[in-house]
Amino acid sequence: MSADRVSEIVTAGFVVIGDEILSGRTKDRNIGYLAEYLTAIGIELSEVRVVPDVEERIVEAVRALSSRYTYVFTSGGIGPTHDDITADSIARAFGVPIDHDPRAVAILKAFYPEGQLTEARLRMARIPQGAELIENSVSKAPGFRIGNVHVMAGVPSIMQAMLDAIAPTLRTGARMHSLAVDADLPESRIADALRRIQEAHPGVLIGSYPRSVDGRFSTQIVVRSRDTDLLERAAEAVRQAVGAATAA
Amino acid sequence: MSADRVSEIVTAGFVVIGDEILSGRTKDRNIGYLAEYLTAIGIELSEVRVVPDVEERIVEAVRALSSRYTYVFTSGGIGPTHDDITADSIARAFGVPIDHDPRAVAILKAFYPEGQLTEARLRMARIPQGAELIENSVSKAPGFRIGNVHVMAGVPSIMQAMLDAIAPTLRTGARMHSLAVDADLPESRIADALRRIQEAHPGVLIGSYPRSVDGRFSTQIVVRSRDTDLLERAAEAVRQAVGAATAA
Repeated sequence: MSADRVSEIVTAGFVVIGDEILSGRTKDRNIGYLAEYLTAIGIELSEVRVVPDVEERIVEAVRALSSRYTYVFTSGGIGPTHDDITADSIARAFGVPIDHDPRAVAILKAFYPEGQLTEARLRMARIPQGAELIENSVSKAPGFRIGNVHVMAGVPSIMQAMLDAIAPTLRTGARMHSLAVDADLPESRIADALRRIQEAHPGVLIGSYPRSVDGRFSTQIVVRSRDTDLLERAAEAVRQAVGAATAA
Repeated sequence: MSADRVSEIVTAGFVVIGDEILSGRTKDRNIGYLAEYLTAIGIELSEVRVVPDVEERIVEAVRALSSRYTYVFTSGGIGPTHDDITADSIARAFGVPIDHDPRAVAILKAFYPEGQLTEARLRMARIPQGAELIENSVSKAPGFRIGNVHVMAGVPSIMQAMLDAIAPTLRTGARMHSLAVDADLPESRIADALRRIQEAHPGVLIGSYPRSVDGRFSTQIVVRSRDTDLLERAAEAVRQAVGAATAA
């Protein structure tokens, strides 16, 4: 890996599209999955927005994140029903026409038995002009990429398959490594020490995450850095501080 | 309930604050909980943003949602450690000073044994000027409300307790009611009928949610409306369409 490559930071934004997430009827599982996936391959997820099935709101979120981050991913709203308006919204966000895409039509034709490619199903072949298709190994109807925006399905198994198809095309940066230290203490007992360790170790990020199990508080301290030597030194300082506080 | 009250729509935005959600290390459980809670009491969650522990990003998200929705809720970043920067960020978003709040100090003094109210723990009493405290029945350190923004903890059990404390103070609007119809069909089989039913029933929102279990696709159709008569009529049309498509 070249020095340039190590020092580059690649960022991403994620737009989750769907009334059902905002009403609470469906509990999102894609944010956590995408976050972990991108972190593992060296892309920093920097912002997530959840927006309803409303064209202007999708357009606004996609434009805002597209101009700010290396990549944007979206999930939801690319099925065959009237409430699936993501493809049209993305076309509008990029100011390009949208129509049935011959490559997508061919994929659906090959999948559905003769005579069953209904008008509703054909809707799934509507792709903004200039987009590349993203393979859907689960249920065939493709996602697409246009500019730096990757449009994926909302059903988790399909979103995950599309992400596997996209991953080899993504530029990745220096991976953020992390080490966790568990402390059987409420975080307020270790807070002063953590602040000092953070100040003494620029180039690492120290996060403190309280947990409550049956009313008993413990803390996980997570140390993150793109430099594994720095990371190990800071984590060791945290381990010592936790040991000292636990013994006190 | 007066007619005015029924017709009013009360909206909310939610800002989830925390590097740990964006790195995927912690899987958010607060979005789904808040969404369901607000829907149940007649507040429409209209947008969610997940942002990192970076002051300018918190300020930007809170300002954007505060000007757009009736209420804003935040979760995360109000603990005792150096990475807890939400209170200071909110003060900056509102352009007010922040300092140790005598009411919050009193709560912490009453909770911690003599001599154990450390500087780190006192940080949890830093509250923007002009804010009201939000009770924390779990671990005492309070949240706060300033303007239309409600600042809550990120630990789910504490966030939930704070929400219970806030709820009686919120203005609520006409509740969005919903009915679900399960179809043992892929959604493309019912899409044309749903579009016609949607067009024939303004005042209801019809959502179609595909599911995949062991490779088999089914669909849940969710009909939503603030008017229960309209809701029932549209749901009945959906039930008949699903019945016809299943028999076909």
